[in-house]
Amino acid sequence: MTDEDQVVKEITPMEKDFSQWYIDTILKTELADYTTVRGCIVFRPYGYALWENMQSLLDKRFKETGHKNAYFPLFIPESLLNKEVEHVEGFAPEVAWVTHGGDEELAERLAVRPTSETIICSMYSKWVKSWRDLPILINQWANVVRWEKSTRPFLRTSEFLWQEGHTAHSTEKEAEQETLRMLDVYRDFVESELALPVIAGRKTENEKFAGALRTYCIEALMKDGKALQAGTSHNLGQHFAEVFDIQYLDKDGQLKYVWQTSWGVSTRLIGAVIMTHGDNKGLKLPPRVAPIQAVIIPIPGKESAVVYDRAKKLKETLKGAYRVELDMNDEKTPGWKFSEYEMKGVPLRIEIGPRDVKKNQVVLVRRDNGEKTSVSQDELYETVGKLLEDIQKNMYNQAKSFTEENTHTVHNFDEFKDVLEDKKGFVKANWCGSTECELAIKEKTMATIRCIPFEDSEPDGNCICCGKKATKKVVFARAY
Amino acid sequence: MTDEDQVVKEITPMEKDFSQWYIDTILKTELADYTTVRGCIVFRPYGYALWENMQSLLDKRFKETGHKNAYFPLFIPESLLNKEVEHVEGFAPEVAWVTHGGDEELAERLAVRPTSETIICSMYSKWVKSWRDLPILINQWANVVRWEKSTRPFLRTSEFLWQEGHTAHSTEKEAEQETLRMLDVYRDFVESELALPVIAGRKTENEKFAGALRTYCIEALMKDGKALQAGTSHNLGQHFAEVFDIQYLDKDGQLKYVWQTSWGVSTRLIGAVIMTHGDNKGLKLPPRVAPIQAVIIPIPGKESAVVYDRAKKLKETLKGAYRVELDMNDEKTPGWKFSEYEMKGVPLRIEIGPRDVKKNQVVLVRRDNGEKTSVSQDELYETVGKLLEDIQKNMYNQAKSFTEENTHTVHNFDEFKDVLEDKKGFVKANWCGSTECELAIKEKTMATIRCIPFEDSEPDGNCICCGKKATKKVVFARAY
Repeated sequence: MTDEDQVVKEITPMEKDFSQWYIDTILKTELADYTTVRGCIVFRPYGYALWENMQSLLDKRFKETGHKNAYFPLFIPESLLNKEVEHVEGFAPEVAWVTHGGDEELAERLAVRPTSETIICSMYSKWVKSWRDLPILINQWANVVRWEKSTRPFLRTSEFLWQEGHTAHSTEKEAEQETLRMLDVYRDFVESELALPVIAGRKTENEKFAGALRTYCIEALMKDGKALQAGTSHNLGQHFAEVFDIQYLDKDGQLKYVWQTSWGVSTRLIGAVIMTHGDNKGLKLPPRVAPIQAVIIPIPGKESAVVYDRAKKLKETLKGAYRVELDMNDEKTPGWKFSEYEMKGVPLRIEIGPRDVKKNQVVLVRRDNGEKTSVSQDELYETVGKLLEDIQKNMYNQAKSFTEENTHTVHNFDEFKDVLEDKKGFVKANWCGSTECELAIKEKTMATIRCIPFEDSEPDGNCICCGKKATKKVVFARAY
Repeated sequence: MTDEDQVVKEITPMEKDFSQWYIDTILKTELADYTTVRGCIVFRPYGYALWENMQSLLDKRFKETGHKNAYFPLFIPESLLNKEVEHVEGFAPEVAWVTHGGDEELAERLAVRPTSETIICSMYSKWVKSWRDLPILINQWANVVRWEKSTRPFLRTSEFLWQEGHTAHSTEKEAEQETLRMLDVYRDFVESELALPVIAGRKTENEKFAGALRTYCIEALMKDGKALQAGTSHNLGQHFAEVFDIQYLDKDGQLKYVWQTSWGVSTRLIGAVIMTHGDNKGLKLPPRVAPIQAVIIPIPGKESAVVYDRAKKLKETLKGAYRVELDMNDEKTPGWKFSEYEMKGVPLRIEIGPRDVKKNQVVLVRRDNGEKTSVSQDELYETVGKLLEDIQKNMYNQAKSFTEENTHTVHNFDEFKDVLEDKKGFVKANWCGSTECELAIKEKTMATIRCIPFEDSEPDGNCICCGKKATKKVVFARAY
């Protein structure tokens, strides 16, 4: 048995047990680790670096669309959380409560924020006086806590990291535009940076955010055929403005309530990247966010000094433009390193041995498709750039094909059940629009309406549940 | 009364009431705001941008010295926090406790992290097996909570933002080197980026971090003559390693405990910047971290179109290299804007009126010393760069002179008390080294030993308290 086999063997094949493959991949690649704190994980440096890369690409987009970052308190007094009825009903069951400060019992319990609408609205009501104060376009990067019963790294943990945008506008139209603009920022981000194809659409009344007027989302399909909500954007209407009394004096001299939005993506996106691109060798990371874009592995042979020396020079050539590492550890064989960095999902491997030094070349191996090519060292800098771009595109295309192949349209409930059992994936079906049918389908099949898609939602038959006239063709799936 | 007078009047003069000046400045410039949550503030966009600039400059330094970022859980189970005796005694009185998740009472209370040594050590004990796993060089950017009795924005709040570095090493020497290296990173950062001169040194046994072997610190002097601890770096020795069982198999086949360090700076630094540089007009921000480095204020006169047009072009010229804003709001007079941006501490103002357009010039006004110069628009790009550098240096020099002028050496207790009452500032005095004298002095004067400085700590007389032979000359002050 070679070293290579041994490493790969430690990850359970996804066909055998997808959940175990997911956990094995996370732990073995040191993205994260379990802790002694119920439902909380550690983001280890490799996993956190991935999040930092996502953050910086998202943050740039937020700032380009006029948003500024701020930071609001972690704690929300119980009375504040209770103000918006639907909102508190949605979140109360999963709130972690602080009851004591030092030895003293607090007069009022404090919620550890599950989301920040209420605390932020309490400030907006203080800051907004006139139409001149609008719009407010604020984003916050923060940790939030939801006391989940069953947890899974990155997908559902008691504490997670996210960003939450919170905006206030003078008109309904502007708020709706903002809601859709930010959904499109998310779509563009996940498609171009994370290589995740998504279906964008609106949530049903039943699935919308607690306290929102309308919730929009992007939904991605994982390799096990389950859907994952990758981002949401809410038009909050005036619900919170009325409860928190956020009014402005308009140009016409009238006091009016503001229109609000909120929108967020979280470290769930790391889970989405793992489950969209990974394979039985481990991770496959999109070059745009990979902590290591290319790894140089010297194959020293009998001329280690010459090879190491050249490898160092190659690293110098690349390091300004790419996130590149050189693995000089001489306690591990090149073969071990090959499988190690494949497992870690590094998009490009650069091999250099004595023969390559003589021929002034290197061998490049792509993680996405295993293709191996030799290039002149003089062309390395440009070739790496081109290959990384190509890998990024190819990963998107592969995921796009997978999503298309696993999106099925059905016209009756039997077909619906069969597809869900046999093929999984997204299932498009006609729906009458009633919450009754939505819940009945969920109870029978565990599938939920992921969204009413922006594209191709015209019904072409009757509701698969009640048989009455359908109002929409919607996207169902079992979901994370 | 002009608009200008009106704005300035709203900030209480620092000579009249320094604390009120501090609060007025923070609220009026919208760095932060109070919330309904006890002791917690909102970092408003202007204040958070200042923190983001600090973060990015610090983070670069951490990465250059080989550290990687990670993220550990917000919650620490009570039993874990209790493991290191000195540590828990130091922090228990100010811990916020989570006791309920949803409706259920937790089997074990969870501390909202006041600092993360214990949770991080519990992970290191899992990750460290061999000498090959060392050193571990990890940093975390996070929120922490300490349930403070009396609070003040940025200086002492129930929740604050910080970074905490946590490293593990194979030898005592390496840990000590790391502790001192990171203190020097802090010193370099605050001096070159925040223009804060500091005294670096070691904390006394009484003042050291709960659970540390030795604590080092940098101390800055505020304009009211009080000291502020700007950063600390702790050599934790093997205290935590023994309690959390962090052992590694060394090359010699022996199991050994690791040596650890931890080090942190927080959003207190914002307070330090305000109180070191500010004046009765408001903030004075060091150019390297100022959210707005230069503001262009058009003085439209009767030729607004021409002036606005040129102002926009100037902004285009500058914006790639500098954080520049153009204030086109035509509901406010130029005079109002002058005082507004002075209050906000923007280092450089660029005025342009019809006459300037004709003469192809602009007027530049420095916030640090009020100097006004005219320069050709063709030279603006370079002049702005030079002036910002000069302002940065000048602010450091001004603060350095202030600190020197307010550092006094005394040789007996009467002198000590007089200086503390009349002149305030840092007071250097001989000390016998006993905690008894240290505490007696604190009780009588409210002054604490800020540090045993690295430079000039040779005693030249007897202890100002007990009169016995001094072992050190140390730096006292009343402190935030």
